[in-house]
Amino acid sequence: MTSIGIVAPQSMFFAKPLPLQSGAEITDYTLVYETYGTLNADRSNAVLVCHALNASHHVAGTYSEDAGTTGWWDNMVGPGKPLDTNKYFVIGVNNLGSCFGSTGPMHINPATGKQYGAHFPVVTVEDWVQSQARLADELGIKQFAAVMGGSLGGMQALAWSILFPERLRHCVVIASTPKLTAQNIAFDDVARQAILTDPDYHGGDFYAHGVVPKNGLRVARMLGHITYLSDDDMAAKFGRDLRSGSYQFGFGIDFEIESYLRYQGDKFSTYFDANTYLLITKALDYFDPAKDFGGDLTKTLERTRAKFLLVSFTTDWRFSPERSHEMVQALVNNNRTVTYAEIDAPHGHDAFLLDDQRYMNVVRSYFARAYEEIDGGSLKAGASA
Amino acid sequence: MTSIGIVAPQSMFFAKPLPLQSGAEITDYTLVYETYGTLNADRSNAVLVCHALNASHHVAGTYSEDAGTTGWWDNMVGPGKPLDTNKYFVIGVNNLGSCFGSTGPMHINPATGKQYGAHFPVVTVEDWVQSQARLADELGIKQFAAVMGGSLGGMQALAWSILFPERLRHCVVIASTPKLTAQNIAFDDVARQAILTDPDYHGGDFYAHGVVPKNGLRVARMLGHITYLSDDDMAAKFGRDLRSGSYQFGFGIDFEIESYLRYQGDKFSTYFDANTYLLITKALDYFDPAKDFGGDLTKTLERTRAKFLLVSFTTDWRFSPERSHEMVQALVNNNRTVTYAEIDAPHGHDAFLLDDQRYMNVVRSYFARAYEEIDGGSLKAGASA
Repeated sequence: MTSIGIVAPQSMFFAKPLPLQSGAEITDYTLVYETYGTLNADRSNAVLVCHALNASHHVAGTYSEDAGTTGWWDNMVGPGKPLDTNKYFVIGVNNLGSCFGSTGPMHINPATGKQYGAHFPVVTVEDWVQSQARLADELGIKQFAAVMGGSLGGMQALAWSILFPERLRHCVVIASTPKLTAQNIAFDDVARQAILTDPDYHGGDFYAHGVVPKNGLRVARMLGHITYLSDDDMAAKFGRDLRSGSYQFGFGIDFEIESYLRYQGDKFSTYFDANTYLLITKALDYFDPAKDFGGDLTKTLERTRAKFLLVSFTTDWRFSPERSHEMVQALVNNNRTVTYAEIDAPHGHDAFLLDDQRYMNVVRSYFARAYEEIDGGSLKAGASA
Repeated sequence: MTSIGIVAPQSMFFAKPLPLQSGAEITDYTLVYETYGTLNADRSNAVLVCHALNASHHVAGTYSEDAGTTGWWDNMVGPGKPLDTNKYFVIGVNNLGSCFGSTGPMHINPATGKQYGAHFPVVTVEDWVQSQARLADELGIKQFAAVMGGSLGGMQALAWSILFPERLRHCVVIASTPKLTAQNIAFDDVARQAILTDPDYHGGDFYAHGVVPKNGLRVARMLGHITYLSDDDMAAKFGRDLRSGSYQFGFGIDFEIESYLRYQGDKFSTYFDANTYLLITKALDYFDPAKDFGGDLTKTLERTRAKFLLVSFTTDWRFSPERSHEMVQALVNNNRTVTYAEIDAPHGHDAFLLDDQRYMNVVRSYFARAYEEIDGGSLKAGASA
């Protein structure tokens, strides 16, 4: 089990307008992506890995000898890893509106010749899936062996199974939810308000002012971070430990947890785009595929044809196991083949990114079984859903 | 059961310096308070009600015919109410550093002739208790029938039982905790950072600039509010209800929960002092009476002499029932008389302010029993703990 080594991003330009759920459209856009492994002769071993809020197309490998450039899911994707690039051809793609290379708010709007800023169209999970489908078309991939993602990435995988039922044989949805709760939306809105009311946001045109709404982004990230960790995990890691052994009786740093969160917030505010943060939280809030089916998730998932793997983590209070149960139940109601693992892990929502051997083994054996459908590089007859 | 009617605040000036836990002291300060009911002949029927983050001395009654001026615990305190002012003499006092009349950051520091601003000394729960004890001295109350509070108010009641064991016969601790968790502190620090990094905070001297850090206060309050409600209650009250029936595809208001939280944040930012918010969250974070006893809560509570009533609420994830269990266990370990009620209520932390008949009846019967110790206006022999 080794790392995939040094990788490089690629990009694909799309001139044809992409109609969006909002009614707007986006034209002349670029998607940045990476691939790992080799596409087989009948193009049946491709796996699309969808990313969550602050991740990107850079799923695995490094950009240099510097381990600091390692992809965000390198423990999951690589030679001999759970998603084994000796067998599968894996694609990571940066979502539209993100800030890691694909067209986003910091790019020039061809219609105006100016940066999009806050005028970048609000994109949804379904819009991302449509844009990913066009990329798959260009890469000659008619059907994915699997579409996979955690958290917001899991929403994209689920949306794939609904929008393009015939284009994926397996759908892997980890630490995700069929829709956000009021509390989830509330946290997202506090984060957005912190950014929108930062004077350095300048209505989204902060690029032109040569500033960044760092304070807003920082608060947004600190808050987000709390929801990614479990109460127990935070207690175990930080507890009430004091930075310097005693109370400071001021508003500097007393507790280690403060130091940690402020550091995370500071770091985030130096590299993440504020408009992207707003866009991505909106995509999270809007995701609700059952909305068009009177809220009936069973009816919504009737059109799916894939087989499913769902994984949840017991201490994930952001997208709790109950949310996965809802999806499992709706799939079972439709007689779909579903594998479900609930991992008793202490690390909250972030557990989906961490090395838990039980979790890794579940994904490993799932992909190993799924590969049996691919016979010597050719899809076996009848394996297509 | 009627309201207590129209009430008026009083104030008491203290010239004598009050030494604070930080090592600083505060001098020439005023405490604003209200009283309801009548102090009996042997001054044995006084109950001190301590307030939480954004409440005040105005516990019950109104300031005018306007019901909008009703005190924050009017459902709990009044003639015929659970804490019956026909029997008890009830005192509410605004904490030092608060912004409702007692000396706080917006007042003049006699040492400099300028407003305290961020230079108001950081006060602790124990400091508040010391200041309240001085007020009790002035009012001629040697021993309270009870000291009572919810949330941060409950911490003050608990601190009373430790600092002045002989000065209260009963200690009523509702929806509280013996110390904040790392997650609690984390939420507090995000709120503080939102205020401290608001350019209108001006290092705490915003009064002089004629502005208020409204954006920071607004974010702080929105965030706080999420932690006062339960996930279930938010789901029941707001769910994913849309303000105007459809997605707006912008960063205005889509969901009812957004509208509600922003309204709460806006309202709060017009009346609450930013420096007070910082001070009070620090008092919350610092409270940890077991800290001086090697973290041993049983040892900490050994010195208590009061009888205890503790109440918690099942869906309170801010100060969960487990936190109350810790206090109950430590008191039982010390052979203290403890009554504990865990109310299966859906309303989260805020439940302690709401009308739940089971909860109200627990408090009512507790205070009725406690009153039996007071015989015809005189404390019965042996009733003192």
